[in-house]
Amino acid sequence: MPSLFQRRQFPAALCIFQIAFILLFSLCAHFNEHALPDNKSKVYVNTDYPLFQDIHVMSLVGFGFLMAFLKRYGFAAVSMNLLLCAFVSQWAMLIRGFLSTEFRESWSFTISIEEIMTADLSCTPILISMGALIGRFTPMQFVVMGFIETAVCTVIEYLIITVLHCNDGGRSLVTHAFGAYFGLAVARTARKVRMISKRGTIRVVGEDAFDDNSEDGIDHSELFSMIGTLFLWIFFPSFNAAAQEPEDARIRAVINTYLAMTSCTVITFMLTSLTDRHGRFNMIHIQSSTLAGGVAIGSVANAILQPWHSLLIGGVAAIISVFGHTHIQPCLRKSFLSVTDTCGVHNLHGLPGILSGVCSIIIVLVYDPSYYGDSLHQIYPYFAGGEKQGDRDKYDQALYQALAIIIVFVSATVSGLFTGFILRCGCVNQMNDPTGAHAENAERAGFYYGLPQEVLWRSMEMQREMQMRYRDHESNEIY
Amino acid sequence: MPSLFQRRQFPAALCIFQIAFILLFSLCAHFNEHALPDNKSKVYVNTDYPLFQDIHVMSLVGFGFLMAFLKRYGFAAVSMNLLLCAFVSQWAMLIRGFLSTEFRESWSFTISIEEIMTADLSCTPILISMGALIGRFTPMQFVVMGFIETAVCTVIEYLIITVLHCNDGGRSLVTHAFGAYFGLAVARTARKVRMISKRGTIRVVGEDAFDDNSEDGIDHSELFSMIGTLFLWIFFPSFNAAAQEPEDARIRAVINTYLAMTSCTVITFMLTSLTDRHGRFNMIHIQSSTLAGGVAIGSVANAILQPWHSLLIGGVAAIISVFGHTHIQPCLRKSFLSVTDTCGVHNLHGLPGILSGVCSIIIVLVYDPSYYGDSLHQIYPYFAGGEKQGDRDKYDQALYQALAIIIVFVSATVSGLFTGFILRCGCVNQMNDPTGAHAENAERAGFYYGLPQEVLWRSMEMQREMQMRYRDHESNEIY
Amino acid sequence: MPSLFQRRQFPAALCIFQIAFILLFSLCAHFNEHALPDNKSKVYVNTDYPLFQDIHVMSLVGFGFLMAFLKRYGFAAVSMNLLLCAFVSQWAMLIRGFLSTEFRESWSFTISIEEIMTADLSCTPILISMGALIGRFTPMQFVVMGFIETAVCTVIEYLIITVLHCNDGGRSLVTHAFGAYFGLAVARTARKVRMISKRGTIRVVGEDAFDDNSEDGIDHSELFSMIGTLFLWIFFPSFNAAAQEPEDARIRAVINTYLAMTSCTVITFMLTSLTDRHGRFNMIHIQSSTLAGGVAIGSVANAILQPWHSLLIGGVAAIISVFGHTHIQPCLRKSFLSVTDTCGVHNLHGLPGILSGVCSIIIVLVYDPSYYGDSLHQIYPYFAGGEKQGDRDKYDQALYQALAIIIVFVSATVSGLFTGFILRCGCVNQMNDPTGAHAENAERAGFYYGLPQEVLWRSMEMQREMQMRYRDHESNEIY
Repeated sequence: MPSLFQRRQFPAALCIFQIAFILLFSLCAHFNEHALPDNKSKVYVNTDYPLFQDIHVMSLVGFGFLMAFLKRYGFAAVSMNLLLCAFVSQWAMLIRGFLSTEFRESWSFTISIEEIMTADLSCTPILISMGALIGRFTPMQFVVMGFIETAVCTVIEYLIITVLHCNDGGRSLVTHAFGAYFGLAVARTARKVRMISKRGTIRVVGEDAFDDNSEDGIDHSELFSMIGTLFLWIFFPSFNAAAQEPEDARIRAVINTYLAMTSCTVITFMLTSLTDRHGRFNMIHIQSSTLAGGVAIGSVANAILQPWHSLLIGGVAAIISVFGHTHIQPCLRKSFLSVTDTCGVHNLHGLPGILSGVCSIIIVLVYDPSYYGDSLHQIYPYFAGGEKQGDRDKYDQALYQALAIIIVFVSATVSGLFTGFILRCGCVNQMNDPTGAHAENAERAGFYYGLPQEVLWRSMEMQREMQMRYRDHESNEIY
Repeated sequence: MPSLFQRRQFPAALCIFQIAFILLFSLCAHFNEHALPDNKSKVYVNTDYPLFQDIHVMSLVGFGFLMAFLKRYGFAAVSMNLLLCAFVSQWAMLIRGFLSTEFRESWSFTISIEEIMTADLSCTPILISMGALIGRFTPMQFVVMGFIETAVCTVIEYLIITVLHCNDGGRSLVTHAFGAYFGLAVARTARKVRMISKRGTIRVVGEDAFDDNSEDGIDHSELFSMIGTLFLWIFFPSFNAAAQEPEDARIRAVINTYLAMTSCTVITFMLTSLTDRHGRFNMIHIQSSTLAGGVAIGSVANAILQPWHSLLIGGVAAIISVFGHTHIQPCLRKSFLSVTDTCGVHNLHGLPGILSGVCSIIIVLVYDPSYYGDSLHQIYPYFAGGEKQGDRDKYDQALYQALAIIIVFVSATVSGLFTGFILRCGCVNQMNDPTGAHAENAERAGFYYGLPQEVLWRSMEMQREMQMRYRDHESNEIY
Repeated sequence: MPSLFQRRQFPAALCIFQIAFILLFSLCAHFNEHALPDNKSKVYVNTDYPLFQDIHVMSLVGFGFLMAFLKRYGFAAVSMNLLLCAFVSQWAMLIRGFLSTEFRESWSFTISIEEIMTADLSCTPILISMGALIGRFTPMQFVVMGFIETAVCTVIEYLIITVLHCNDGGRSLVTHAFGAYFGLAVARTARKVRMISKRGTIRVVGEDAFDDNSEDGIDHSELFSMIGTLFLWIFFPSFNAAAQEPEDARIRAVINTYLAMTSCTVITFMLTSLTDRHGRFNMIHIQSSTLAGGVAIGSVANAILQPWHSLLIGGVAAIISVFGHTHIQPCLRKSFLSVTDTCGVHNLHGLPGILSGVCSIIIVLVYDPSYYGDSLHQIYPYFAGGEKQGDRDKYDQALYQALAIIIVFVSATVSGLFTGFILRCGCVNQMNDPTGAHAENAERAGFYYGLPQEVLWRSMEMQREMQMRYRDHESNEIY
């Protein structure tokens, strides 16, 4: 029988965190003037509430169901996704508050529609990292990871956007790229953590994918995953437009993202058919690579003034993403790195995120600053002639954009490795059951470490299922 | 062979109702000036249309799929949900119109975006009551119930909000609490109505839940249910903000609801793990208790001026809701009451709704009226000094808030019992098949009483399925 | 082994199309002033972005999942739907641009929120046609069809709306009716194209439907289909309001559509129970006929000034649609026409679309033009006294509305037959495998013609499945 500590550390941790959050909110958080009485203006129509709702759908339905292709793990994915959203958004509101100038002056910060929207945006990196790790980590480990990652990620975002005045309008670098590389680094360090059911019930994207596809074609896991894909696809323009200003930048962000998504999708279908010996589709590409365009356009969605540039970036993103699935993913696993990326976030968020950073360098060099007129200093605040008395020309700005990429990559990797080490130590519970295929042990592992029970259940069913599996495979051998 | 009356009363009833609705609309309903020609203003951006759409998603997708965890009954739940939404929203528009001052003066009432939004809000109580009864009632019974409940509920809402000037901004009392207790009362009276497939194919929440969970982990019922949960979770701020004014109250409602949801979700995950001997999750808690925060904050979402108060209320809601699932639900069934609550609406809407009423008492006592400035009389219209020449101080108002709780509870229970008696009488068709497990009878029951056919189908499959079931159970006995 | 051409023509075609699109965008497309820098106004709140998002959800989630009831073909339906949306929206933006007056003057056209919204609207006809054909056509064929149909449909819309000044506010004629009859005409010509798995795995609506229903009740195909139905149901008011102006017309469109949907749904449930010998529901009616009201009100949603007229139209639409499912659908297949309509689009889009056209004739005759005041010339631009110096009275306008119906029907049929002939010729790949039931051939067919692989997979499984099927059927024979 496991110790009380082992069985109860998860609820205990949540309890402590939530109480701490409530205390911190009671000390520091208050409403802003819009939410306070006697506010005459019809502010609602000017708030970002509709955008907030779009992003809300993406975080909860989009990311949640995107991970639901895991046959037996679908419910766990969706529910952990919900927990992390609720947990992280409170924590993010607090950190953003502590970083605000208002807090430095008055030891308190405001909560408004905008704050809850940015809090939602802050959930994304954690959900992305989760995608790289799901199937191997316990809820406890995800909560600890979310706590650390949110803090680091928010500080890095503050550094890049507010201190270094880099342009990352759609947050592709500080959200997508950071989340992906953080997750991969954790996966690297914690690779010793036995992967549940490597016997095939969790599909690691890119590994015997095709075989799995035909499997998944039967039950409906893939269709649930498409729910996630479609809602992410639909609301991606809102995601990239959320943090933009002024208004014209927001509208550009919407249109550019939409255009990039469309061309990215067409090219993805082209490549998925091209990369198959018989010209068939690969569901993994359709589920993830079709979204790469939205990620790749993110950092420059507010800066692009030519529609066809967006189409071009979308196409390149599709190529990189599919290439990542077919060639880089396997290397990551086989090579000395031996990083297992469950949902292939590296190909959906990592590489396109870096591409987005590269685009931001190219765009600042290619476009003449004069094009932007007065908007210039809202996109590149530190350009010469702005309120901030900046002294940059386009070449300086390009260097800063490059610096941003390096900072994100390094900070994500280092903090990820660090987090991974913490999550490895025994006190944070984990599934170190050597022979998980064996019902009894798997079960005990579950009892010890508070797994979502269908995982537990699954391990017990495994042998029986495996037998059926093998039977099926024989009949499918032709693939 | 059943009588024509038995087989055709359902379509006949719908036909009569719809014709009556059309006649009443033709007599009394007209567009308001915004919808009439020659309206120059760009009113669209000021309408509540986006809020209406959010609530629309909640009623149809949210509530529909929340009930889809019923293995064989998923489609019936979703389609009955759709029928009741379409049926009730017309009926609610009419009743609200008849209660309007305009109708008293001119014998006609207006239809505008706001009316269709409030009509959507009026669907909620019926959908909640349905959740307590689904699996035992025929479509005919649900239609009759919807017809009666809508009338009663709308009148009670009118009484509490417009006549007694109580603050129930998010309608938690008149919508959630009313719907829940109405449904439970019906379930009590109509408990003689045999429950289809109590043999396990309909999971009664709280009853051998865990066993069922592991079952549901295999097929995807639980994931469909999560679709409902997530869309309710996402749009709950819109639900609580819909009926608020002025603008600042609406923004407070959004933020307070959001905060309450987040803390409620974290505490729910804590408790679901804590209440399990082995620290595992219980899907039922995750699917329903995570939403309790939004219900509990409803009545006071517009009145709370401190973010942390919302977090606190959310946490308390989670505790009450999970406690309800684990302790009250079984009592309700076993005790002399013997009320069977299929989806556990008592724990998601009933208890948190009452909690919301209690909070509205506390808040009015705790907060100094002066905080609200001019907004005071929009939140508590009858406070001294308002347009309505009210003479209440905070203590009077607190009494009125308490009165509201009592009125809702009593009226819901009484009207529910009354409705239950009507639904029991033979003329309204019902499934009174004594030995429903037996294929032939179940089938005949179906033929007689126009069940959605998969229910029928299921009953036929039952024996075969039961056998498989029992086999599985042996292998799962360990749980 | 198939030729390189056969295996690679699909990716090659996509590649060529996408490059052509990028080139055309680079030559002709630019942002409008709202999206260009130095735009001070807070235009966001005045844009149609929220409406665009609603329609976006309809095209991708709604139409995609509506077709997901196809047991083995669900994923293919959703992913083809995604590809066609991405492909067609670019192509539609270009064609609409070429037709714009601005292009005629300056050889270039603008892209703004409005353009991407109308581009989304242009996807609908193709998705509808796809619904009539899915299960028999290859991705290559769908792409070619989408390319041709978009061009024809956009030109016809331009002709009817802009040249002939007919009122088709919700685009029911030029979108729904056109798409349906185009698809049927293609199905007629290409009927020689062997239908995959006519052995029952693809349910052709109306053919042994009931049997299939009970089947689908078990697995979750029907529930996925309901996701599509519900999102279409929810956002239909946005669809019909999208292209309306001025503001009051838009609000009327929203309310009228909503009312029509509600009465249509009630009547559908009445009829589905009435048409069954035992008073049971038919899932096909619930999934498609409940939406007919939104289609039928489309053309006149902006012109109706009496709420009850909308309720009436909705009811009639339900009657026509259910009648189509029960009586016309079988005739179409059995008769000399031998048109196979996989999803029954004729009953959901074809007949109600025509009905909408007929309503537009009746409405223009019934309503006195003076009712509309100054709005008259925005609804009927060519009425005497408008800016366009039109000279029509209501009778002329009625003739033009009738002309619109004829144009749509004829153009859709002719262009559909023409497209069908193209799609039949061997160079556009197709599945002409004579004995598809036989694993080896079906497989080769797949290899040759780049089918989504689960189709391929399914054909291989067919025999085994058929056996199980037949076993089940024996036990279900009672239906």
